[in-house]
Amino acid sequence: MARVLSVQSHVAYGYVGGKAAVFPLQLLGYDVDVVNTVNFSNHSGYARAGGTKTSAKELNMIFNIMELNELLKQDRLLTGYIPSSEPLAAIADVVRRLKLKNPNLVYLLDPVMGDAGCLYVAPDVIPIYRSMLPLATIITPNWFEVETLTQVPLVDFPSIRRALKILHTEYKVPNVVISSIPLYSWLLVVLPPTIRPSESTVPPHLLCIASAADIGNQDGNSRVSARAIPQIPGYFSGVGDLFSALLLGHYRSSRTEAGHEEIKGNGINGFGNGHIATPMSDYGALTSATTLALSTTHAVLSFTHKRTLGLPELERLPTDDEADASEPLRRTRRMRGRELALIQAQHILTRTDEPRFELVPWGDFWA
Amino acid sequence: MARVLSVQSHVAYGYVGGKAAVFPLQLLGYDVDVVNTVNFSNHSGYARAGGTKTSAKELNMIFNIMELNELLKQDRLLTGYIPSSEPLAAIADVVRRLKLKNPNLVYLLDPVMGDAGCLYVAPDVIPIYRSMLPLATIITPNWFEVETLTQVPLVDFPSIRRALKILHTEYKVPNVVISSIPLYSWLLVVLPPTIRPSESTVPPHLLCIASAADIGNQDGNSRVSARAIPQIPGYFSGVGDLFSALLLGHYRSSRTEAGHEEIKGNGINGFGNGHIATPMSDYGALTSATTLALSTTHAVLSFTHKRTLGLPELERLPTDDEADASEPLRRTRRMRGRELALIQAQHILTRTDEPRFELVPWGDFWA
Repeated sequence: MARVLSVQSHVAYGYVGGKAAVFPLQLLGYDVDVVNTVNFSNHSGYARAGGTKTSAKELNMIFNIMELNELLKQDRLLTGYIPSSEPLAAIADVVRRLKLKNPNLVYLLDPVMGDAGCLYVAPDVIPIYRSMLPLATIITPNWFEVETLTQVPLVDFPSIRRALKILHTEYKVPNVVISSIPLYSWLLVVLPPTIRPSESTVPPHLLCIASAADIGNQDGNSRVSARAIPQIPGYFSGVGDLFSALLLGHYRSSRTEAGHEEIKGNGINGFGNGHIATPMSDYGALTSATTLALSTTHAVLSFTHKRTLGLPELERLPTDDEADASEPLRRTRRMRGRELALIQAQHILTRTDEPRFELVPWGDFWA
Repeated sequence: MARVLSVQSHVAYGYVGGKAAVFPLQLLGYDVDVVNTVNFSNHSGYARAGGTKTSAKELNMIFNIMELNELLKQDRLLTGYIPSSEPLAAIADVVRRLKLKNPNLVYLLDPVMGDAGCLYVAPDVIPIYRSMLPLATIITPNWFEVETLTQVPLVDFPSIRRALKILHTEYKVPNVVISSIPLYSWLLVVLPPTIRPSESTVPPHLLCIASAADIGNQDGNSRVSARAIPQIPGYFSGVGDLFSALLLGHYRSSRTEAGHEEIKGNGINGFGNGHIATPMSDYGALTSATTLALSTTHAVLSFTHKRTLGLPELERLPTDDEADASEPLRRTRRMRGRELALIQAQHILTRTDEPRFELVPWGDFWA
């Protein structure tokens, strides 16, 4: 019986953070222990949002009691939106304690910091996330978060390579998954034919890349797989939270779960701490899990999009900031219409047969 | 697409309050909006528990923003553990607002106050719950809570009748369900043969009573059905929370959902407020829903009990306060072993065919 600790935001209404992650993991059979980093009415995409953030002191109280009660022994850990540095530091401390107890902990770190050039956490969160990277088994940054963590602006193919190498070698992250990458023309031209979408469908595709560190490779080059997927029109919240939860839920590596030797000292994959086990990369497990997470997330989004089309006109209005400004509830109604249809699509969440978007090897990624 | 607002306690670890109620409702297809009245590490049965209670101010902030965002339009409402009077008063206010918006709101009020002679909320919570009773469609008090609300000590059969009549006529509660009633000898002898368990199995049974107000009956006598069920050994937490959630989820009354006329003024079932619709009783819907909730809860408990038997000895120790006192973690380990197996038993939660414990009419209850 596998057990996940999920440390995420909580909203009363709708499906982001924990509300997007916990139910899918429960459907996959995981007991999920849930610590809320905020308690809000709804996500911030609505015109108004309110509630409280959980303080570092409150988080410490909950985690300390859990530890005293021997309840801090999860097999897996998922961390998402944590908006301020003190609570994040408290959580980083818990991650270290969990790893000491269970060297085989599978930790998916989603470094939620911003999107599309815009930071929506306090800037002092960034160095703490950097310090946590070596503890993670998998990270799922978006395009902007890769840039923020590595300080490499992603403007051409060499910059993608450079950023990935920094994550794998400097920050010792074994597995990196970047979903929803816009297919810029410079990216499109370097895609192998097995990954490039056909000409006629090019504009509305996004790219997902999975990169597993290759321990045997002295260059620090990783093993990369990828897949282009058709983009679903409109903006939906909680998609990244759902994707990360599914990725963690489907990741099955014998390298972590069957127990591997603790790597100590300053070995090639160690990060200098003699006590905390270094997570392992696993190209096969990562590619399979990403395939399942990507296919399921896409199916849930398609389902949600179809439902949205059936809503009253008020709730499927196009994005229009000017119209929103003159009518405050316009934006809110659109947001409500675009909440993920997780409950109605629950039959999709448990399906693992014939995933639609299989990741394929990107053999010459480093060539 | 039905939507439930669940206002309950939250624990990081284990299955009580919202953690026992939300997942089953989601499996039944409900979108569940979740407002946490406390954020704790674990339930209070463990030797240690810690966290924070949500203040009335915080609750008001969340509910007010939800209302401004037009997100306070649920079809159903479930309220559980709310430990202090100020937050409870804030929630009572929200219930009134919800009912004004939706006269057909189905509200299940679980007046969580204590058990077995022991009050575990502040005493000033009691009058507030009394004032909320006329707003409820269904209430699910336990034996002690019936006594506390009605101030009738339940010591013989006439006192049960008196207490039920007070709830139906004085507090205008249309539907009352009391599960897990100990089969005292005075209760056993008044049970009709169709409800009384056979001699050989008598000791380990509990009684569940469902009582629906009979609007046409001038005496205020209700229509009662009941069922005796075998007791599962040991104490499990969250059972009442699970039962109430399932009862709300399965309650399907055409009297509320098809829309009934708002009853105004001081009609037989009105409570003097000209604006808030009075909930309706529905004997058939109540009996069916109680049958399903009872059968499913029992099946989940049986499953959990069997799993408990397979645990290491440390986690299935018998209750022994003396031994607990000398070894603080003993109690904690036993509690951990007795958390409801909701995730592993999820296939049970959605089954509605051939419920095992059908409630049968108690025709001469008032005779």
